[in-house]
This record gives sequence, C-alpha cells and structure tokens, in this order.
Amino acid sequence: MSGMKKYTIGIDFGTESARAVLVDVKNGDVAASAVYQYPHGVITEILPGSKIELDPDWALQHPTDYTNALKRTVPKLMKESQIDPSQVIAVGTDFTGSTVMPTTADGTPLSLLEDYQNEPHAWPKLWKHHAAQDKADQLTQLASDRFETFLDRYGGRINAEWFFPKIWEIYDEASSVYHAADRIIEAADWIVWQLTGQETRNLCSAGYKALWSKSEGFPLETFFNAMNQGLTNVIDEKMKREITPLGQQAGELSEAAAKWTKLNPGTPVATGILDGHATVPAATVAEPGKMALILGTSYVHMILSKKEYRVPGMCGMVEDGIIPGLIGYEAGQAGGGDHIGWFVKNAVPEAYEKEARKRKISIFQLMEEKASALNPAESGLVALDWWNGNRSILADGDLTGLILGYSLATKPEEIYRALLEATTFGTRKIFETFIASGVPINEIIVTGGEPAKNKLLLTILANVTRMEIKVAESPYITALGAAIYAAAAAGEQRGGYETLQEASKKMASLSNKTIVPNNNDKKTYNRLYSEYTLLHDYFGYGHNNAMKRLKNLRTAILEKQRRK
Amino acid sequence: MSGMKKYTIGIDFGTESARAVLVDVKNGDVAASAVYQYPHGVITEILPGSKIELDPDWALQHPTDYTNALKRTVPKLMKESQIDPSQVIAVGTDFTGSTVMPTTADGTPLSLLEDYQNEPHAWPKLWKHHAAQDKADQLTQLASDRFETFLDRYGGRINAEWFFPKIWEIYDEASSVYHAADRIIEAADWIVWQLTGQETRNLCSAGYKALWSKSEGFPLETFFNAMNQGLTNVIDEKMKREITPLGQQAGELSEAAAKWTKLNPGTPVATGILDGHATVPAATVAEPGKMALILGTSYVHMILSKKEYRVPGMCGMVEDGIIPGLIGYEAGQAGGGDHIGWFVKNAVPEAYEKEARKRKISIFQLMEEKASALNPAESGLVALDWWNGNRSILADGDLTGLILGYSLATKPEEIYRALLEATTFGTRKIFETFIASGVPINEIIVTGGEPAKNKLLLTILANVTRMEIKVAESPYITALGAAIYAAAAAGEQRGGYETLQEASKKMASLSNKTIVPNNNDKKTYNRLYSEYTLLHDYFGYGHNNAMKRLKNLRTAILEKQRRK
Repeated sequence: MSGMKKYTIGIDFGTESARAVLVDVKNGDVAASAVYQYPHGVITEILPGSKIELDPDWALQHPTDYTNALKRTVPKLMKESQIDPSQVIAVGTDFTGSTVMPTTADGTPLSLLEDYQNEPHAWPKLWKHHAAQDKADQLTQLASDRFETFLDRYGGRINAEWFFPKIWEIYDEASSVYHAADRIIEAADWIVWQLTGQETRNLCSAGYKALWSKSEGFPLETFFNAMNQGLTNVIDEKMKREITPLGQQAGELSEAAAKWTKLNPGTPVATGILDGHATVPAATVAEPGKMALILGTSYVHMILSKKEYRVPGMCGMVEDGIIPGLIGYEAGQAGGGDHIGWFVKNAVPEAYEKEARKRKISIFQLMEEKASALNPAESGLVALDWWNGNRSILADGDLTGLILGYSLATKPEEIYRALLEATTFGTRKIFETFIASGVPINEIIVTGGEPAKNKLLLTILANVTRMEIKVAESPYITALGAAIYAAAAAGEQRGGYETLQEASKKMASLSNKTIVPNNNDKKTYNRLYSEYTLLHDYFGYGHNNAMKRLKNLRTAILEKQRRK
Repeated sequence: MSGMKKYTIGIDFGTESARAVLVDVKNGDVAASAVYQYPHGVITEILPGSKIELDPDWALQHPTDYTNALKRTVPKLMKESQIDPSQVIAVGTDFTGSTVMPTTADGTPLSLLEDYQNEPHAWPKLWKHHAAQDKADQLTQLASDRFETFLDRYGGRINAEWFFPKIWEIYDEASSVYHAADRIIEAADWIVWQLTGQETRNLCSAGYKALWSKSEGFPLETFFNAMNQGLTNVIDEKMKREITPLGQQAGELSEAAAKWTKLNPGTPVATGILDGHATVPAATVAEPGKMALILGTSYVHMILSKKEYRVPGMCGMVEDGIIPGLIGYEAGQAGGGDHIGWFVKNAVPEAYEKEARKRKISIFQLMEEKASALNPAESGLVALDWWNGNRSILADGDLTGLILGYSLATKPEEIYRALLEATTFGTRKIFETFIASGVPINEIIVTGGEPAKNKLLLTILANVTRMEIKVAESPYITALGAAIYAAAAAGEQRGGYETLQEASKKMASLSNKTIVPNNNDKKTYNRLYSEYTLLHDYFGYGHNNAMKRLKNLRTAILEKQRRK
C-alpha cells in the first residue's frame, strides 16, 4: 500500500453543475474528472412540480440535484481511474454561497416535504437570489445605527446575497417555514452533513456570509432581537456556535455516503468551504501580496494579508477565512461573464450567427475576433457593469447596467467590447481600493472559466489594470482547490500535507501564459476609466438614484400585474 | 379644356429616394405616384468611383441621383394617369436640407467634374453630414460674442447640419473647391434650377438653414469676415440676396426639363422648399395652435404663430417660413425612427428573426407585438434618444445615446420599447419648451413614415404627451405638400388657389384615427419622464461631458488609425 499513489477527491458544487476531480496528492495531477449538470439548474420562474410563479430576483435550486451530483460523479471517478478506494485519503467539497436551506433536525430539506414543497421560501435560496435586498438594506441600517463593529469587516454594508438577509426574508414572508425549520444551513455544510452524517459549520461560510469572526463570534442576541424579536435566538435555535476551521477534518464518510460514492466508509471528509475561496490555493495563492482573481459568471477577488486593514466595500475580511493564520479579503463583481452571456443571448444579430456558422466557429469566437480588431475608445462607448448589481465596492444589488455613447454607427462588437471593458474597470476600481487601504497587490493570477475562452478579456484587463496577468488554467480549478483542502485535512500522516500552504505549493501550478500590458492602450484606458469613475460615482453614490427608482417602479408594476 | 380635371405634380426628394405624385387640385386625391430609390443612397464610407474613405460623421449624395429621379418619376406619372400634359397646372418640389452643393456658374455640380470628383468636399453634403460640428460650435460662439440678433431665432445655437457650417468646412478643408465654386446652393434650389434653367433661392431654406430673415436679411459681411476674411463676401460671391417667397412661381419648365419630364415647356414651377416644411399644409396645419409632428427617420415639429416668441433650442423661427403671413417655428429630433432602424439591424437576436419568419410577419411587427405586451416602466429601462445627437432643445450634434437600467433579465423588446419611449420623451421636452415660451399647442397631427407602421409609437406618444394624437396618413404626404405649394404657385386663374391656407384646406385631409391617452399610463410615464429629464439635463447641459469627450477620443483614434 505504501508504494501506491495517494489521491484526494474534490467536488465543486457550482451554479449550474457540479464538477469532481480525483487528484494525485503528490503533484496535483488530475487523474479523473466528472461533471454533473443540475437537471433543475437555477430556478427563477416556476417552482418545480407546481404552477407557482416566482417573483423577479428570485433564484432557487433543487436539493436532490446536489445529492445526485455526488452519486453520479464520484463513482465515475473511481470507475475511470480504476484505483482502489483505499488510495483516496480524503474527500473535500466546495459550494456556492450563501446558498441557504431550511431543513428538519436530520437534515431533510423542507422543500422535499409535501407540506412545504409549494412554499418557495422552503427551497434552497441560491447565492444569486436577490429578493432580500430590502432586508439587507435594513440590516445595514440597523448595524450602522447600533455601531456594530462587525460592519467594518464587510465594507460597511450587508449584501442581499448573504445568510441573514435570506433568513430574515423567510421569517418575514413565510414564518411557518421558519418555525418548521429545525436547522437553517449553508449548502456548503449541508453537503458535508450528507457525506458524514454530522452537522458542522465551516469557518469560511460563517465568516464571509454569516457575520461571524474568530475574535467576536456571531452578532449578539440583542442585534437579532432588534431585527425581530422572533429572531433573537436564531443562532442557538437554527445554527451552531461551534465553527470548524478550514483544511481540517469535519468527519468521516458515513456508510450511506460510502455506498453512494463507492468510497470506503471512514474516509476523512474535509470541512466545507465556499467555492471562490477554495480556488485561491489552487491558483497558487497562499501568501500575502498575491491577488487571486476568479473570472467566471461573476468575478471574485481574493487576497491575503498578515495585518488587518479596513477596506471599504469589501464583501468580507475574515481571519483564517481562506488560509489559517492569514486575513482573507474577498471582493467581488456580481456580474462578469454574465454580461457576455446576456449579450450573446439577447443582442447578437442574425447575420453574425450566420457568419459564425459558416466559418464553423462559436459566436463567442466571432465576437472576440471582431471586438479584438477594435482599438480602445474607438467605439465611443463606455458602460457600467452592473447588469447584476454591484458587489464591490458599492455593495448595492439594486444598481443596474448602463451603456453610454451609442450612435447610429454603433456595431454589436463595439457593445460586446464595451461590456468586457466595463467589467475590467470594475476590477480596477476594486484594486485601487485595496491598495489605497494598505493591502498591496504585487501579482495577479487569474483563474475561473473565462481566461481559457476569453483572451481579449485578459488583454483588456492587463491594459486597464496596468499589470501583468498570470493564469492558473484548469477546467477543474475549484474542484482542485477542494482536493487541496482535502489533502490538508488528511494530514501528513495519511499521505497528505501538514499545512494548506504546503498543499498549495505541491498541488497547484500556473500556465506559462503571461499577458503584458501595452503602453498605448494603457493610456487610452486611463481616459476611459476616468469616464467610468465619473459615472460610477454619480450613479453609485446616490447623486442620481435613477437605477433604484426605476427598479422599484418595475417591481411595483410587476407586482400589480401578478395580482390581476 | 375647362371641363377637364386639373392636376399639380409634387416631387419629394428624401434621404434615400424621391417620390412623385400627381394630385387632383380639387380634392387632393392622388391620381398617380412613383418612387425612385437613389442608386447611391447615402454615401458614408467610400467616395463613388474611388477608394477614398470618408471620415466618420460624413454623409454625401450623388447629384445624378436627383436628376435621374426627375427623369424616372414624372414620365411614369404621366404614362400611368394618361392625362394630357396641359392638365398639369404646376410642378412643385421639396428637398432635404441643408443639403449643400458647390456648382459652376451654369449649375454643374463640381463633383461631376473630373478635377473635383475625388474631392469629398465637392460633393453634395447631405443634411445629416455631421462633420462640421466644430464649425457650428465656433459659429455659435462667434455669434454669441458679437451679440448677433439672429442667434435668438435659432434657439441660441447654430446646428452642424446647416448651410454655413458646411460652407466653412469646405473653405477650411478644401479651399480649392470653395474657390472653384461659382455658386454654392441648397439642393432644394438646385433642383428648381434644373427644372427652370433659372437660379432662385427659396425663403424656407434661407430662413431655416442660412440665417436669413425677412426683416434683417443675411448676417452682415462683418460677421462672415470674423469667421474668415476669405468668407467676407460669401453671399454676393456664391449665393443670392434675392429670396423667393413660398407658394409662388420660381420660373417655368425649360425645354430641356420638359423633355425629361414629358410635361409642357412653360408649365409653372413652384419655389423650392424644405421637405419637412412642405409637409405642414399637407397635414392640415396652416393656422396657429396646431402642431405638425413629422415622425420619420428623424422627427420634425412645426407650429405656426401670429406673434413672435423666443423659444429656446429651436431649429428655427422664420417669418413666412412655412405659410406666408405667419411665423413658422421648427424644432426637431435628430434621431427618431433611426433608432428603430439601428436596433433592428444591430440588436435583434436570431431567435426573433426566426419567429418572425415562421409567422410570416416582419421583424418590426414582431418587435411591436412583443413590446406592446409590456407595461410602461416594466422593463426598468430608460434611454436618451441621442443616437444621432440632439437637435432640439439642446442643439448639440456631439451628444450620444444612453440606455440605463439593464439587468440580466433585460429582453430585446424591452430595449426596443425603451428606444420608442425615449424619442417621445424628447418630443415632450420640445412641447413643454414651446408652451413655456408662449406658443400654445392645442392639437397634434402626426405624419411621416412612422405613424402608418408604428401604432405602438403613437400610443406611447399620446400617453407621454398626455394629448390626443390625430393622424395625417399618406405614403406621399410630403410630395402632396409639394403639390399643394404648386397649387398655390399656379394661382386661382390657372385653376389652383389664391392662398396656401385655401390649398391646404381643399387638398389635405386627416385619417379617422385618433389616439387617446390612458390615465394609468400617463401617470407612469410622468415618472419615467422625470428620470429622462434628470439624465437629459445632466448629460445635455454639461454637468458631465462624457459623451463629447468620448466622441472626441473616438475621432482622434480613428484619425490616427487612418494615418497609419
């Protein structure tokens, strides 16, 4: 046995699918991989098995998609690789978040019970469920009025995507669901519960999504009481105060889960972690000064620091939140690749689709080709990348997108390029905020889904940020991250590693691509960025609240229509 | 002969084509019609017969397209109707403007001479040629610095589309063309010259496009001298001081033109007139208080008044400029239907095209159907209708379009509707400016190309302006206008009319459609309009000059590229 290779399994539960990898612990090589598309995907219109229409801004998921992902992917890894289950020294998972679900005491999701299946609030609310914006605003106001110290760790604002706005939404709009729920839990912890039979709460989700910190714990009962008397004991009634650190063992694989996965019962299972954070050590980032920039549907920015700085508009600043021993800062852009997805679905003319088909390239490739032929500023367009709201640094889900500079000569590829540019302006805004706050950024490593398919985005990013861009390229990078955390959870004795830093060093690697900025384009982008900043500040800081007023009016009108 | 019906012919020279009608003088019935598409259309990229690329914002035309239009359409009218040429009591023409051409002393366009055919400035500059914006800005500044009284008649700004910015552009950028030109003339007058062999200058073009007024004439030589010493005598050297009133005879059909048209030599030819203005009496508007709103590629707003008021941001206010005896006010929106044309060409996804084909409807019809199903404000979008700059009330061709409120759920029909709405907000802004300045609007009559095909636009217009909308519907309304002016030019003796009012009363009519505003939508649109106004004022009055800076940067970059 000692001569045989050792592996960990990482399973990444994403927005549309789960990806699992079997990874060689020695060097991070992926020995096998499997993907499971969630049959229900993101539920935004009709509640499954019913005719119940969801309000705008809702986004739910189906819990059986999660367990089916385990049952489908892990056995496939084992079958393909033909390794012995004993060679798997640990299993790790990561999950989107805050993805929140109410369950019974034994972990059964309320949404699977007949009594609650027609109640939208009983279903897992996906991270991008944005209907609790009013709750988030009230929470922010309340915390600010009470001078709550935790607020500073979250850039002064509570995001609608987080744990407590979603809980409060359940309490207020479906109190029976709230009362029926013995537990309310992050999906990241729920999936570990399914694997181990034991309920744990991971430090990453608690710190970044549930206002918890190592030094102060959760907010006080008086705070929850101020939200609503009925929520006073939400921590003790629905959650857990004991928080499990990262890169450690949460439990062992249960008999039931061993059957689903074809692994050995007793295999160590790592603490749950959020997906973005799991990616960080997989992108070689395990020490201060390096920025891991995850470019996917949304963008996430992670950086580590020994000292604690107050950075405005952060999503979170959590001690031990990514790598034990360091402060993990997270910033984010709520819409990144999403903008491109929206554009391709809604705004590409037929002639372009025909051209792409004729040339046997994808429409993305065609748009990239046409947009690459343009010079910066040639279109006269500038956009605000707020199609999905603004996460950092404004932390305002009610902001919306804008394009300025249209003329009768404006071409689709110009709009496409303006959207790419806008997302990189948003990134630069975040970089500048970090640096101004005392957190240096010496190196940028990009990863996520976009870098492999969107070369133009990286070129623009280098020119807009005026920095070299390095690439951590793997279609399974987040799952690799989960496998790295699993290797640390297994520990040196079992053939894993003593620390996460060590696991990252051995198991993570960069591609040999480096994108270097171009002097001319840098200058032009400085000018475009100053236009972006003017618009960003005008619409983002309330000089003109048009976006919010229009969104409120829209909500009122859709509400009225529904009541008809 | 006295028992035979009497006719006039009206020929409307538009942007893409010319339309001619043979009209029964008694009741305005159209006895025959003909359309001629200009083979060269609008020349924006390459100068015909060369490889010379045009700068952005250029728009030229080919003069032989104009004469060929005469040769093709009028004989067709005569052939189809089988009437005797003697039954045609007069011919009238109308033209886009300011469409300006340099010619030799006998009227030969310089662009047709070998020496000048490769010189873009020698070609007819179409109304929508926008490259002289800097000249327009300088003219405005100069007129303002010198307290020129004429400036007030044009809303305080000289538009880049007018006569003198285009002339100055020729002088500055192609002085050899300027010096070679014996005459510089509006196409509206050039075409009359082709018909009669006599050069005249019509009051409408002079008043609305060349800073002339009945009481003050042209600007003084000192003004032109201040522009450039070489331009001091531009009026006496290149133009005419004698201005011919509207609805009168400019001359008689020459032998040559009689051959082209198959009409009798000596047939009266009416003074030239601009196309928008010719439409006014054809839309039953020949007295104060009625607004003729011409909805086409661009929108034009014409209203008459006995008294002279100063209205900010007008395109022009001209005594006798539309109907002799009244002040004719003209306002305009540089982009109207243009926005829809742009959208349909550049932003409709393939799935929509397929649906339209499957259902055998046009893509316009499909978009109208989908957009009509939406409620006002349901999209959360608001737009500024400045794809082609802003004519009234900001008179600034360097402004560009904007859409605000995009989300990942934004659908193409929502953008389509937002564009329609934006154009009607622009219209309301103009109405409010008229009313606030003392010019009442008691009745709105819409006409032009859009009303027949765009019912949704009219519904939105009624709700946004909170007024009933009446419709003057004829595919040949502008040409009918030219025929009405011809009937007045012919005079009562020849079987026409003594006054334009009388000719309009007999020859023009309304459809029986009336669009009535809806109370709910009116209220919602008041809220959207207030958002439009905030954005209009912020970007339009220089609080944020992003649009201009981006346009300048764009121009500089395209310039640099061309030099490579």
